[in-house]
Amino acid sequence: MAKALEKLRKIVPPTPLLQTEISGRSICLKVESLQPMGAFKLRGAWHRLTDLSAEERQRGVVAFSSGNHAQGVAWAARRLGITATIVMPADSPAKKLDNTKALGAEVILYDRVSESREEIAARIAEERGSVVVPSFDDPWIVEGQGSAGLEAVGQLAELGLAAPERIVTPCGGGGLAAGLALGVPAAEIMIVEPEGWDDMTRSLASGEIVGVQPSPPPTSCDALQTLQVAALTFDILRSRGARGLAVSEVETGAAMRWAFDNLRLVLEPGGAVALAALLAGKTEATERTLVILSGGNVDTATFKRMTGL
Amino acid sequence: MAKALEKLRKIVPPTPLLQTEISGRSICLKVESLQPMGAFKLRGAWHRLTDLSAEERQRGVVAFSSGNHAQGVAWAARRLGITATIVMPADSPAKKLDNTKALGAEVILYDRVSESREEIAARIAEERGSVVVPSFDDPWIVEGQGSAGLEAVGQLAELGLAAPERIVTPCGGGGLAAGLALGVPAAEIMIVEPEGWDDMTRSLASGEIVGVQPSPPPTSCDALQTLQVAALTFDILRSRGARGLAVSEVETGAAMRWAFDNLRLVLEPGGAVALAALLAGKTEATERTLVILSGGNVDTATFKRMTGL
Repeated sequence: MAKALEKLRKIVPPTPLLQTEISGRSICLKVESLQPMGAFKLRGAWHRLTDLSAEERQRGVVAFSSGNHAQGVAWAARRLGITATIVMPADSPAKKLDNTKALGAEVILYDRVSESREEIAARIAEERGSVVVPSFDDPWIVEGQGSAGLEAVGQLAELGLAAPERIVTPCGGGGLAAGLALGVPAAEIMIVEPEGWDDMTRSLASGEIVGVQPSPPPTSCDALQTLQVAALTFDILRSRGARGLAVSEVETGAAMRWAFDNLRLVLEPGGAVALAALLAGKTEATERTLVILSGGNVDTATFKRMTGL
Repeated sequence: MAKALEKLRKIVPPTPLLQTEISGRSICLKVESLQPMGAFKLRGAWHRLTDLSAEERQRGVVAFSSGNHAQGVAWAARRLGITATIVMPADSPAKKLDNTKALGAEVILYDRVSESREEIAARIAEERGSVVVPSFDDPWIVEGQGSAGLEAVGQLAELGLAAPERIVTPCGGGGLAAGLALGVPAAEIMIVEPEGWDDMTRSLASGEIVGVQPSPPPTSCDALQTLQVAALTFDILRSRGARGLAVSEVETGAAMRWAFDNLRLVLEPGGAVALAALLAGKTEATERTLVILSGGNVDTATFKRMTGL
């Protein structure tokens, strides 16, 4: 993981580590929404794509994603001169679709309900000989995303502060959460999901992988709409004793508004759920708690609706 | 100035340096709006207050400001256990008034039109034996604010990039701009002011200090409403060949909206004017241009009005 961080350090500056107070307790925030493409996803993408062989690079990469992983892969691919094809749901936020195209990737849309993005991606990979870059079920991706934790530990040390004893993080497929668990092994990991999409929370509670229950409610957290997590990410989190919880749309919107008012940051719904859990009092900050703000790619209409702005 | 930066580094992390593109040109942004109190002002305040003698610290400090300097002084004073009295215009943004009070400072309101804040502050200083901490006309303040430039040079070096050859910065009394000119002597300095409040621009063009012309238009850039700059800041900027320009309310609002959409940042009007100058094509980015986003303390109503959100 140190290798992943070292590779990243040559192309992007560390994301900011902000200090704030919630309920009188000082907490640290890792602001991944300020990555060049607006989310932590370029960490894993860069780590994976830079480790492709010269021959693999020539054949291009294919990925599927609602948007942040798409942009992360597209961003890394452009920097490395690799052709990227991204399979995205037709209902992805316009901003994420536009940004992915603007980064030079070929975007193929699919219907979230009736089509399988895995099958579409596999077919393209087969046809073109491209490498599939999964959004979380991949050791490079997990390791790359975890570099956010290692980076935060370094930033805390520069301020003379100890490593976090607790990390509260948004969770979709668990790539980021598992990476943080590996990168900061002494920290307790609390993952946060949207209500109705809390499959990792229930999986961790039951000790085995369970998917999202049928007909999940609509959520504005498009980045966290994973139907089932992977053995890779689940096993890491379970072995580290991670636990989870879910937050509501209202709690998520309140956190987005709080970040706007108090942190001067624009967060997307999925990027605000960990903060929401703390603000709603669903989990407590300890002396040394690190909260991950994972992304900021949100359409204006969604932002206004969620924040009441 | 290295000393000022060294002192700061022990209490706050560096503010982020973001890279973005404007008109196909890569530029770097120094995000001072993400300082703990939302603006660069704690740099100068911390440098000044930490150099007070033990006896001076006991007698407290007094400052006058529309808000960002107020919060910077209040923030530094609280960290050092010094009593702070801040003289603020009664029409300061509510957020700035509230934040200054929340930081434990005593706030004394005055009428911007009929009263002199300098006289009120001088009277309080006389009565209490307090040290006056000016918002720009003070060598410590200039040096402290300039640490933002020195910090950016270090961040660029870590990415293997050369120091900026051009810095575009908002300008009120010129403390920040003069500090940048001292801290990054090889860079050309372009200062940006709101239309009708471009006294530094006109002073630099004419070679002598001229004040704001009578009955200046209303501006949302409360942080940049300085009626006349100081010899200290003017002389530094003139000797370095700095030039200036003015941007309109519409251009400023467009920049705030652009930062919201593309940078995921909330900027206050005065904090967005340098970015506005580039986006409006009033000044060009060279190969290595650094743009200062100086603050983010804005009321919701003003934010919505300016951005059309």
